[in-house]
Amino acid sequence: MSDLSSDTILSALAPANIRAIAPYQGGKPISELAREMGLNEADIVKLASNENPLGMSPKAQMAVEEAIDDIARYPDGNSFALRDAVSHKYGVAPSQIVFGNGSNDILELAARAFLSAGDEVIYSQHAFAVYPLVTQAVGATGVVVPAIDFGHDLPGFLGAMTPKTKLIFVANPNNPTGTLIPKAILNDFLRQVPKNILVVLDEAYDEYLSATDKSEAIGWLSEFENLIISRTFSKAYGLAGLRVGFGLMHASLADLMNRVRQPFNVNNLAQIAATVSLQDDDFVARSYAANQAGMAQITQGLTQLGLSYIPSFGNFVSFKVTNAGAVNQALLKHGVIVRPVANYEMPDYLRVSIGLFSENARFLDVLEKILKS
Amino acid sequence: MSDLSSDTILSALAPANIRAIAPYQGGKPISELAREMGLNEADIVKLASNENPLGMSPKAQMAVEEAIDDIARYPDGNSFALRDAVSHKYGVAPSQIVFGNGSNDILELAARAFLSAGDEVIYSQHAFAVYPLVTQAVGATGVVVPAIDFGHDLPGFLGAMTPKTKLIFVANPNNPTGTLIPKAILNDFLRQVPKNILVVLDEAYDEYLSATDKSEAIGWLSEFENLIISRTFSKAYGLAGLRVGFGLMHASLADLMNRVRQPFNVNNLAQIAATVSLQDDDFVARSYAANQAGMAQITQGLTQLGLSYIPSFGNFVSFKVTNAGAVNQALLKHGVIVRPVANYEMPDYLRVSIGLFSENARFLDVLEKILKS
Repeated sequence: MSDLSSDTILSALAPANIRAIAPYQGGKPISELAREMGLNEADIVKLASNENPLGMSPKAQMAVEEAIDDIARYPDGNSFALRDAVSHKYGVAPSQIVFGNGSNDILELAARAFLSAGDEVIYSQHAFAVYPLVTQAVGATGVVVPAIDFGHDLPGFLGAMTPKTKLIFVANPNNPTGTLIPKAILNDFLRQVPKNILVVLDEAYDEYLSATDKSEAIGWLSEFENLIISRTFSKAYGLAGLRVGFGLMHASLADLMNRVRQPFNVNNLAQIAATVSLQDDDFVARSYAANQAGMAQITQGLTQLGLSYIPSFGNFVSFKVTNAGAVNQALLKHGVIVRPVANYEMPDYLRVSIGLFSENARFLDVLEKILKS
Repeated sequence: MSDLSSDTILSALAPANIRAIAPYQGGKPISELAREMGLNEADIVKLASNENPLGMSPKAQMAVEEAIDDIARYPDGNSFALRDAVSHKYGVAPSQIVFGNGSNDILELAARAFLSAGDEVIYSQHAFAVYPLVTQAVGATGVVVPAIDFGHDLPGFLGAMTPKTKLIFVANPNNPTGTLIPKAILNDFLRQVPKNILVVLDEAYDEYLSATDKSEAIGWLSEFENLIISRTFSKAYGLAGLRVGFGLMHASLADLMNRVRQPFNVNNLAQIAATVSLQDDDFVARSYAANQAGMAQITQGLTQLGLSYIPSFGNFVSFKVTNAGAVNQALLKHGVIVRPVANYEMPDYLRVSIGLFSENARFLDVLEKILKS
């Protein structure tokens, strides 16, 4: 039913900024690779989406199983129980919290609530791909600050500010580079950002930081009223499939973001799983420990293969390899899914998520065979 | 941490159209009423959100239970299996489908993909509250066409068109009035809409229509390339808590809407439940029959109470009652949740969803006591 002239006419119905968007490319699903390569799903190792290889909290899983009976009911649009749990865990008022369909939703809500066409948005080279996407979707202009050693150049951010600057995205740690901004430097940066410019601090990987590295930014909220902190349940909490994240900020900013939030953006089961997960410190501790061990296993393995990598504070690591595209294809043929990051201006790198011991070993084993073939 | 001057300064960070949004008010959750009134949740009857009182398809429920183990994985961003199921069920190409976090997401994606500030959007008085919300959120201008007998005045829509008109929302059946546009009239309307104006036809309640009333609009897609049909799994399929809906349209339009879609907007379990639900015709047939019986029960009961109502083609009915606000409060005190529709310019009406026989009877019984007290 589609012909070239119709396509052209219909495409013109969207504004130019929408037509120019190249959609986000996620990690290849196991089922998709199985179809494409004729492999068994059970033989495929996916280390492509920074998922928690331990799964989810067993307590949360039990709660989800019990809640399935109630799926025909709309979710609580105010996420009362989850709001109460986040409020107590992080010491913020309920009115300071915005819930999202994953933290992707929080990033998008910030763009949709605060940006207009012509506004400028600053983020780093190699930063998370969703920042330019949500910026472009609202017709704002992205301003990319070149990275230094793959990390954020915060003095460069300050230098990139103009009267049109409305919002800044800071990823800490950053995906896919794994770099971390030291707390004192981040705090100093926030002091220098004018109060009429919003800073969205994306801490999706905070649970993977050591006690000394862990963010203190939530404690800074009363000082920096222009600060929006984004968190997710998709990483260390193991709830990527259910979609839930949240933003913490001044109540006035939360009120504005909630005005553009879909009333039922967070589903029933996600609310329940997240509420219970927040109380399962043991599961998060085990996830952290497994990640530390797996990170050591993979980085040592990469070193033994003569490959360099970007030291990472997340649950993933990006390593440098000759002919990264071809190596990625070879890994896929052998049933190992990692993440190409050419779209992050890192064409010589691949990003591997930290998996279970056996998954990491399989990845290193297949990679070794490919490099020696 | 919040004071008036901060609130004022921070609110000014959002554009005027965002600051002016009054968020959507959903049906009151059972848990919320229980907290507010000190009632037991088991004693509360919720007939406020047009949910399926039969729950969800038992086959879908089994599939969800089996899929919980995989929650730590991100969803398939392309919804491969669900796309295949919708494609086969409705005879459309996979490229013509856009999936949403409920059909609310589809309505919003249409606004975000196609509307710019200054565009005009036409919808009916008493039409679904999300149309003005998504219009306002992108800075477009809503044009409300007065209803005729609570239904859409399609000639009035044509008369309201201007060179700025970009999109039209048509709800069929409409919520909260339950009115239906006959097929021939709708088809005639579509013929008269210029091809550069998009028509979003919201068919959330289509499964509750009789065989003769059921929409044929999907068969019109090849003729009307500017037509976007929105469907949901939240109503007859009983998956409101999981959040999944879809839009059917020309592939070029789907491509544009997918560019502003969050990559993981539909969660794992929703995809699985919806895929299985589409194959459970028996469950939909039972839901339809239960709704027919419950509609007769409630409308006869209303008539016996001397109350008039708007004949409805959905799984709900709006009835006229003196002091609707006070009656609603009295119903709440007795543990019966219905929906006030004053925000739909229907201050003298309440909307009740069709529930189980016992729930409908409880509603009628409590209502009778209130009216006679």
